[in-house]
Amino acid sequence: MFDFKITHNQKNKKYRTGIFSTPHGDIETPVFMPVGTKASVKTLSPDDLNDIEAQIILSNTYHLFLRPGEAVIKKMGGLHKWMNFNKPILTDSGGFQVFSLAEEKGFTKNKDFKTQVKITEEGVKFKSFIDGQTHFLTPEKVIQIEHDIGADIIMAFDECASAQKTKKYYEESMLRTHRWLERCILEHNKLSKKSSKKLLPQALFGIVQGGLFKDLRIKSAKFVNSQNLPGNAIGGLSVGESREKMHEMIETVIPYLDNNRPRYLMGVGTPEDLFECVERGIDMFDCVHPTRMARHGSFWNLEGRHSIKKSEYKLDSSPLQKTCKCYTCKNFSRSYLRHLIFENEILGLRLMTIHNLHFLLELMQKTRNSIKKNKFESFKKTFLKKFQKK
Amino acid sequence: MFDFKITHNQKNKKYRTGIFSTPHGDIETPVFMPVGTKASVKTLSPDDLNDIEAQIILSNTYHLFLRPGEAVIKKMGGLHKWMNFNKPILTDSGGFQVFSLAEEKGFTKNKDFKTQVKITEEGVKFKSFIDGQTHFLTPEKVIQIEHDIGADIIMAFDECASAQKTKKYYEESMLRTHRWLERCILEHNKLSKKSSKKLLPQALFGIVQGGLFKDLRIKSAKFVNSQNLPGNAIGGLSVGESREKMHEMIETVIPYLDNNRPRYLMGVGTPEDLFECVERGIDMFDCVHPTRMARHGSFWNLEGRHSIKKSEYKLDSSPLQKTCKCYTCKNFSRSYLRHLIFENEILGLRLMTIHNLHFLLELMQKTRNSIKKNKFESFKKTFLKKFQKK
Repeated sequence: MFDFKITHNQKNKKYRTGIFSTPHGDIETPVFMPVGTKASVKTLSPDDLNDIEAQIILSNTYHLFLRPGEAVIKKMGGLHKWMNFNKPILTDSGGFQVFSLAEEKGFTKNKDFKTQVKITEEGVKFKSFIDGQTHFLTPEKVIQIEHDIGADIIMAFDECASAQKTKKYYEESMLRTHRWLERCILEHNKLSKKSSKKLLPQALFGIVQGGLFKDLRIKSAKFVNSQNLPGNAIGGLSVGESREKMHEMIETVIPYLDNNRPRYLMGVGTPEDLFECVERGIDMFDCVHPTRMARHGSFWNLEGRHSIKKSEYKLDSSPLQKTCKCYTCKNFSRSYLRHLIFENEILGLRLMTIHNLHFLLELMQKTRNSIKKNKFESFKKTFLKKFQKK
Repeated sequence: MFDFKITHNQKNKKYRTGIFSTPHGDIETPVFMPVGTKASVKTLSPDDLNDIEAQIILSNTYHLFLRPGEAVIKKMGGLHKWMNFNKPILTDSGGFQVFSLAEEKGFTKNKDFKTQVKITEEGVKFKSFIDGQTHFLTPEKVIQIEHDIGADIIMAFDECASAQKTKKYYEESMLRTHRWLERCILEHNKLSKKSSKKLLPQALFGIVQGGLFKDLRIKSAKFVNSQNLPGNAIGGLSVGESREKMHEMIETVIPYLDNNRPRYLMGVGTPEDLFECVERGIDMFDCVHPTRMARHGSFWNLEGRHSIKKSEYKLDSSPLQKTCKCYTCKNFSRSYLRHLIFENEILGLRLMTIHNLHFLLELMQKTRNSIKKNKFESFKKTFLKKFQKK
């Protein structure tokens, strides 16, 4: 279980295809994971996810801990059964959310911030953005929650430090995240041994931090990699830095993350970024972008990104993308979708979401095929030439 | 086309089963029609509607006239093609909406009202609730719009008078509605002759008005019935009057509406009302209630109406209704649905809608079966005993 088998790896290239095996099935990489923060990929049913051939989805420990609480999900038989999704699931640890949502929702960003989120060696004290209740999350507690939720892949509890901090802060935060990782591993091993044989095994992934500092990133990659976990993640990127800087950081850490384990870049999910990061050796991605932009009426097709609200679509009887095989494109015109989005009809949100995710998942499948045929560069070039034309 | 064949009619009883034939298929009556005001039954796809065996849906001329405009729908091949629903559709004329929405949305109910909606013999001038633009709808214009939209059944343009008016006003309004009906028929016949043979025929239904006044209702029923249209509707009920008063009005008009044509009671759709009105001789119903209450987190099952938000459902692994065969009940627990509704997850709105409509449509199917087996009264009694228990 949790083997990563590289199925194709062209000589002198970072990119590869692979298969990561989990108790709920194999995942072909490179893979994009649709985000279902609160145990639902927004607007979609499990059938919809199967139709678009989602291999794995992501849910969020922090949100599920706050509501409905991990005890509910555990009693209901775990997340897979509760939401009726029988393929692999990954739970984010909530590190990113504890810090970013505390800042965003209801709490002031500046002077009050320290009193709202308090980080100590032991863990993080914060107020719920829902009801203001104070919670204390430690690495041990987060792993306990993730065991109760029961996803196939669980992420270690890390600090995703705000971009405003000094290098000194980043280093301290990173070292604390490393110590937290060791505590996560201890707790995970303890719970894994304790749990009855009925429960399915879970894979813990560590997270590389270090901001935009090369030396810190190398130090972090070396440390996380040395833990020999089933997978390594890169956190704290795609949080506002330039694309060049993100690429530089990925290139910096990749050599220190073993080839024989999947590498997961957290929070990335546009076609351009997927190409660039796959090329640099990333195997797994997640991002709310395709689903969120769908709900705002934007879609991708082979000619780039578009808003369905454009007046030229009013009488356009063609689908979002002529060659697309998704439910939306097989059944509905741009004219009708434009109307639904303008009228805030919920069906419109779902249909746009189905298309965007199908588009991205199909792109990943084509990417895997191109790698297998040693044609990744030409596929990328051809796709982006058309996609970035306008 | 538009024949109404009575398939079962127990002696000395008002209720009956029948088949109304349309260009998009036969409708078995008594029938409940889910409401898709803006060319979408809120949250549902056409596949969802087929899954719950919706025989016919309703859409609204007034809303589609304002947005996107009937010209768009006509150019896109008509409403069936545009929304990809291949079963019968009925369009409400907008009479109810012109008057009620003008009052509700953005316009004051009192002194300014007269300046916002102006009714003359010629038609109705009103301001759009969307952008304040002034429109003028006449019976002829409404029929032209309904021909462009292309539903199987189209409703005549009527005035649904506000409950605050005097009897004198109701009488004047009713007589004007009768004159408008004559104009609707003339326009409908003219357009039906003119239209190319490619276009499918449409059935125009007239609407009985007359408020809560028996003599006016009888006068109106006689007049509307005398037009020999393929179906007769009863409007202006279920607008706030008591259930007893509604029953009294139905009982008053039914004898004057020919047996050999379907009778459509507009705006009714709770299980209790459906039983009572079927018993009194109604064949067709529509109402936003089952879909709206779903989006507010309420559902029906054999034990009555419930809110999914109740704390007792937090750890309830059972479906909304144990014997239910709908997609929601086959796949999801009350616990998960409660979570989705609390979190405002769009999937929750769709799953609740599927269940409520399935529940009501299945109830209508069972009602038809009970009529065919001469067991309507006992079926009604058994169902309501359990349903109204709490």
